[in-house]
Amino acid sequence: MARVFNFNPGPAVLPLEVLQEAQAELLDYKGSGMSILEASHRGKEYMAIHQEAMDNLRKLLGIPDEYVILFLQGGASGQFAMAPMNLLGEGQSADYINSGAWASKAIKEAKLIGKVNVIADTAKDIPTRLPPPGGLKFTPGAAYLHLTSNETIAGTQWKVFPKPGVPIVADMSSDMLSRPFDIRPFGLIYAGAQKNLGPAGVTLVIVRKDLAERVSEKVPVIFRYKTHIEENSLYNTPPCFAVYILALVTRWVLKLGGLEAMARLNAEKAAKIYTVLDTSSFYKGTAVKECRSDMNLTFRLPSEALEETFIKEASAQKLKGLKGHRSVGGVRASIYNAFPAEGVDALVAFMKEFERKNG
Amino acid sequence: MARVFNFNPGPAVLPLEVLQEAQAELLDYKGSGMSILEASHRGKEYMAIHQEAMDNLRKLLGIPDEYVILFLQGGASGQFAMAPMNLLGEGQSADYINSGAWASKAIKEAKLIGKVNVIADTAKDIPTRLPPPGGLKFTPGAAYLHLTSNETIAGTQWKVFPKPGVPIVADMSSDMLSRPFDIRPFGLIYAGAQKNLGPAGVTLVIVRKDLAERVSEKVPVIFRYKTHIEENSLYNTPPCFAVYILALVTRWVLKLGGLEAMARLNAEKAAKIYTVLDTSSFYKGTAVKECRSDMNLTFRLPSEALEETFIKEASAQKLKGLKGHRSVGGVRASIYNAFPAEGVDALVAFMKEFERKNG
Repeated sequence: MARVFNFNPGPAVLPLEVLQEAQAELLDYKGSGMSILEASHRGKEYMAIHQEAMDNLRKLLGIPDEYVILFLQGGASGQFAMAPMNLLGEGQSADYINSGAWASKAIKEAKLIGKVNVIADTAKDIPTRLPPPGGLKFTPGAAYLHLTSNETIAGTQWKVFPKPGVPIVADMSSDMLSRPFDIRPFGLIYAGAQKNLGPAGVTLVIVRKDLAERVSEKVPVIFRYKTHIEENSLYNTPPCFAVYILALVTRWVLKLGGLEAMARLNAEKAAKIYTVLDTSSFYKGTAVKECRSDMNLTFRLPSEALEETFIKEASAQKLKGLKGHRSVGGVRASIYNAFPAEGVDALVAFMKEFERKNG
Repeated sequence: MARVFNFNPGPAVLPLEVLQEAQAELLDYKGSGMSILEASHRGKEYMAIHQEAMDNLRKLLGIPDEYVILFLQGGASGQFAMAPMNLLGEGQSADYINSGAWASKAIKEAKLIGKVNVIADTAKDIPTRLPPPGGLKFTPGAAYLHLTSNETIAGTQWKVFPKPGVPIVADMSSDMLSRPFDIRPFGLIYAGAQKNLGPAGVTLVIVRKDLAERVSEKVPVIFRYKTHIEENSLYNTPPCFAVYILALVTRWVLKLGGLEAMARLNAEKAAKIYTVLDTSSFYKGTAVKECRSDMNLTFRLPSEALEETFIKEASAQKLKGLKGHRSVGGVRASIYNAFPAEGVDALVAFMKEFERKNG
């Protein structure tokens, strides 16, 4: 098989050995005589997967007992609504930081549900950036502070999280499991799986149990974290196959050494590309240096015509998915945990050669 | 491989050839150099799958242009909330028929959202049954009538749908694609995939476009059908792999001759088991004859101890998943589209032998 280098922003590259294991056991899961796609979500095969996925995440992230891990559906877009439905009581307000396209969507949804204060807005700044965490003015008595840990489109990533004095609610869809962090300032973390965790279809939610108790009884039962906590994410049928792949991915991360190791590998991969940007007058990174992401590396070329040629020629050399988001253009290299170092080397070589020919 | 006969109620058996195709192309989808699990939801590979799945469903069900097909997440349990959030305006009421556990859940959720009239309730009847469609009293001006086409736990199935004069909203999770029906009396149909359509993780929604326009602007954007109609189910990342399997399953149903053929095969399979029940004083069907399901066949043995032995001995003979739902006990044989006729024959032979030994 000629495996390409897949720079897709999500759904994204998965570890080859995870795919190989899934393929090997797709027809007969561990001698059960059926595929895991056909197994009951209450049977012992799936239950072991469900539990292993939770155990692995708890271990990787160092999650204390007062937090619960949930496997839900609907992606981060579903959580944009569920978070305020659960955590934003009547008469309360929540602080939101607008750092880009994804934060904007979270804010738009939250405004339909309760009172929102946008305490910082860098969504339209060029170069892309995040507000300095030290300079934020929090609203006294806010229910929570919402932020987006990594803006997939803008190519920015919080390196140090703000200290609002209230629980942080974070969309970590595009950098979850890419680095260690202290979970205790967070009340709720959510992540669509399709970047660092597995395939599209499962949404990881980590919530502090006491906060989930706040929910009004007017909220539909299915949209309450409390419901899913009480039923261990089996209130309704979970997206079993996506959880299964997530379990394999977390096992792979553990084997590689956990989040310290992932962070080191990710920083090394990102540095190789950023070094090209920093030493070139041809390529120009779109994010300010101190905010740039180790997951989604965004840059421009001298013209849109050159960008188009770059993406086309890269694709011909098996470097796929480099087109920037349609809303902003440019080039984006998404290099999540599972993206191999050789792919980064291939991109760096291609970038240098392209600059030599067109610079 | 020793493939078992999988009577699970859902997630459930899938066609072997679908699993084989998925396995064969799991590492490299059609020469793209990546797994379909890694492919962008906006790339040409997934877009072709998304479109084929919709086209196949439209063809199989004869869906006219005024209806839209959506691939959402969250299962029927999500739709229990989304249906009234979208279709039940302020000051309106909706009629619901309570025919069992699933209808009860739909009613509980709808009552949190708007005014609900339960116009018939057979949920606790033993033997299990549905209200006669001719004897229903509809509420004048109701926004819709909600029903559950097949009660997976009770083992009942509507053979003729009521004629309420307002759009029917139907949970068809457990008999979708098992038989042809006229869609025009329906305003909204939804189905979790994990019985007849594919794996858990995608929810099929078919909605009449004009009804989806009713939604209040107070409803979160992600929970509006309108949002997903406008974005062709790509407002957020769809559960791509589940849609892919659904596409393969619909292709398989078309190849077998469509819904007329499925209905004939399903009726033949069900009749074999029902004949045993009807000619035995040992086994007793739990549903009244005119309401019994061709998908989930529920029956009792003379004692719970015998039921336990039956399930255990059947399991040893590779007849898996026959335990009735924990809320009702007994035996349940779920024989969806993909359940093979040989498995029914094996169960019938086992039932006869078990009766001979224990009767």
